[in-house]
Amino acid sequence: MIRYTLTTLFAFALASAACLAQAGQTAIAEDFKPSTLNQPGQEYPQVNSQGYARFRIHAPKADSVRVSLGLGGRGGTILTKGEDGFWIGTTAGPMDEGFHYYNVTIDGGKFNDPGALNFYGSVRWESGIEIPAHDQDFYALKDVPHGKVEQILFPSKSTQTSRRAFVYTPPGYDKNTSQKYPVLYLQHGWGEDETAWSNQGRAHLIMDNLIAEGKIKPFIIVMTYGMTNEVKWGRIRDFSIEPFQTVLIDELIPYVDSHFRTLANRDNRAMAGLSMGGMETKTITLNKPDVFGYYGLLSGGVYSPEDLNGKAKPKLVFLSCGSKERPDGVKKAVTDLKAAGYNSVSYISENTAHEFQTWRRSLHQLAPLLFK
Amino acid sequence: MIRYTLTTLFAFALASAACLAQAGQTAIAEDFKPSTLNQPGQEYPQVNSQGYARFRIHAPKADSVRVSLGLGGRGGTILTKGEDGFWIGTTAGPMDEGFHYYNVTIDGGKFNDPGALNFYGSVRWESGIEIPAHDQDFYALKDVPHGKVEQILFPSKSTQTSRRAFVYTPPGYDKNTSQKYPVLYLQHGWGEDETAWSNQGRAHLIMDNLIAEGKIKPFIIVMTYGMTNEVKWGRIRDFSIEPFQTVLIDELIPYVDSHFRTLANRDNRAMAGLSMGGMETKTITLNKPDVFGYYGLLSGGVYSPEDLNGKAKPKLVFLSCGSKERPDGVKKAVTDLKAAGYNSVSYISENTAHEFQTWRRSLHQLAPLLFK
Repeated sequence: MIRYTLTTLFAFALASAACLAQAGQTAIAEDFKPSTLNQPGQEYPQVNSQGYARFRIHAPKADSVRVSLGLGGRGGTILTKGEDGFWIGTTAGPMDEGFHYYNVTIDGGKFNDPGALNFYGSVRWESGIEIPAHDQDFYALKDVPHGKVEQILFPSKSTQTSRRAFVYTPPGYDKNTSQKYPVLYLQHGWGEDETAWSNQGRAHLIMDNLIAEGKIKPFIIVMTYGMTNEVKWGRIRDFSIEPFQTVLIDELIPYVDSHFRTLANRDNRAMAGLSMGGMETKTITLNKPDVFGYYGLLSGGVYSPEDLNGKAKPKLVFLSCGSKERPDGVKKAVTDLKAAGYNSVSYISENTAHEFQTWRRSLHQLAPLLFK
Repeated sequence: MIRYTLTTLFAFALASAACLAQAGQTAIAEDFKPSTLNQPGQEYPQVNSQGYARFRIHAPKADSVRVSLGLGGRGGTILTKGEDGFWIGTTAGPMDEGFHYYNVTIDGGKFNDPGALNFYGSVRWESGIEIPAHDQDFYALKDVPHGKVEQILFPSKSTQTSRRAFVYTPPGYDKNTSQKYPVLYLQHGWGEDETAWSNQGRAHLIMDNLIAEGKIKPFIIVMTYGMTNEVKWGRIRDFSIEPFQTVLIDELIPYVDSHFRTLANRDNRAMAGLSMGGMETKTITLNKPDVFGYYGLLSGGVYSPEDLNGKAKPKLVFLSCGSKERPDGVKKAVTDLKAAGYNSVSYISENTAHEFQTWRRSLHQLAPLLFK
């Protein structure tokens, strides 16, 4: 069994959880609009054109209301009570572009913002907010042919239950009934689950748009729960890959290959994951080098040439992270891999941290490199 | 355009929102276990073998915490603060079996229970709790072949966007590539959306189990958003069916018939809905009698022989409700329909109100009657 000491990896998540973009000295533009991730009809939270977020929460008899986002540290944004019983507050500076998890502390208890949709992260359903990004077009819902996201329940003898996975099938999958497709197995991070890549990551829309633009050959994506939350935060050394590896290799892949029209071989099977899902990807691809031909670690560590030595050669090693993480480590690893004769590509997401905007962009970069 | 005055229909929902079962005089059994709808690893809320619910919420500096369930009225359950900063409380009596929505009022503001999963109802994501039912086997997750729930995004010219629907395809759909299937269009109620029938209703598991038992011929279910929330509570007279009818009849059905292997004719197409989705079902089936052959209203009103007079005869009219609603109206309507020569079936869910247990059971009763 391979063990990793990736506590440094997860330290990013803490440090960047409330990450602010460069704070400007200009005035706050009063062009706030509801976040696109609000619950239907909800006016708050709002975001402005500079990336500031404003929160408004009804709690007329509360003594303190604080939002976990906005000050770049543990403080978050302290809201101020108005005479109407609504607490209101604006982040101290612009937020990084893209998706952020947050929660609201009301009189010492942690709750969600009733205005925002919820997203599974930190082993709980958290509130989510979307800061419009300059490059948001690549994951926008557009008038193009759309694939499907299918919820499957597959039998798992090793865990004695039916387990859930989501399967993205590209547009045309139902029409082209003689065509078979490559498959990417795509893992979430610690504290998340199989809903993350669709809900937070918009993986299906990234794919629909890339396919509509003719930039990729259509493929299937499979997303399941990586059993990452069985380990407590900071106790990553205690994590054992075997239970999830068994589910993935011995149960899910055979199920997918027998229930979808897949190209069921190494050269048409990829595995990638973000953060702790990257750690899982590295471990499993090294344990099972005959199963996957393409590897991707998104803010999830690196491979060294020594890791790969003596095994079936991967067709691609893709390594990425945000520029606010440790891009030098990713770049150096890719330089080393290339020098050792491996096909390896790095990608650094500018001005983002250990958050989903990094991973949306990473998938957008990775997808065109797969199954060449 | 047909208008309905169904305010009485929705009055049930208010009256029964915090419905208690018959309160016993016996002591509360201290065999509480976490609700099956809790977030991963959460110990509270809990339910006991008698149907009592117990809540425990961390809010150390709050002055009042109240749960909306448990007293049969607007009062709900008032929690009491412990020295550890947790507020705790138990319902005044046993709850009705099945699924209940609820929320938590913290110092005057409405939030969700951080321990529970969220479900879309009342035009917001609410907390949910499951009171184990004596008949829960029919919607349990079992070791049987499972169908899929597919999220599709279909183009809608009338609303100028891509709209979401969920499509249940039965086990074997991907293997039996020459087989075509009937389709049930199944609508949620006011305040809910296209997620309700899967998340709260467990429609996919009800189907998987019925198919595994050989009790029904497999069919497809399509669930989309009925645009019901464009109307304010109590202003049901202002609701216009045309926008949704256009989406359903002119956009969704053609999309489903061209992207799934359907039997695309009246005799193999059903429409059913719960509560306000029943109102929509009644209106649309009467407006478009050539489109659907089977009609189902679940706690959603009735048809009279006069409604159906002079139109293409439905193959089935199914009417249901909970015994705590107005079962006499449903029974009388079916008697009248039968007397007028229509194939009509009534179903009364015992000891349930205007809640999802009524509708799970109703679907379980309706499914074997369809597409005969």
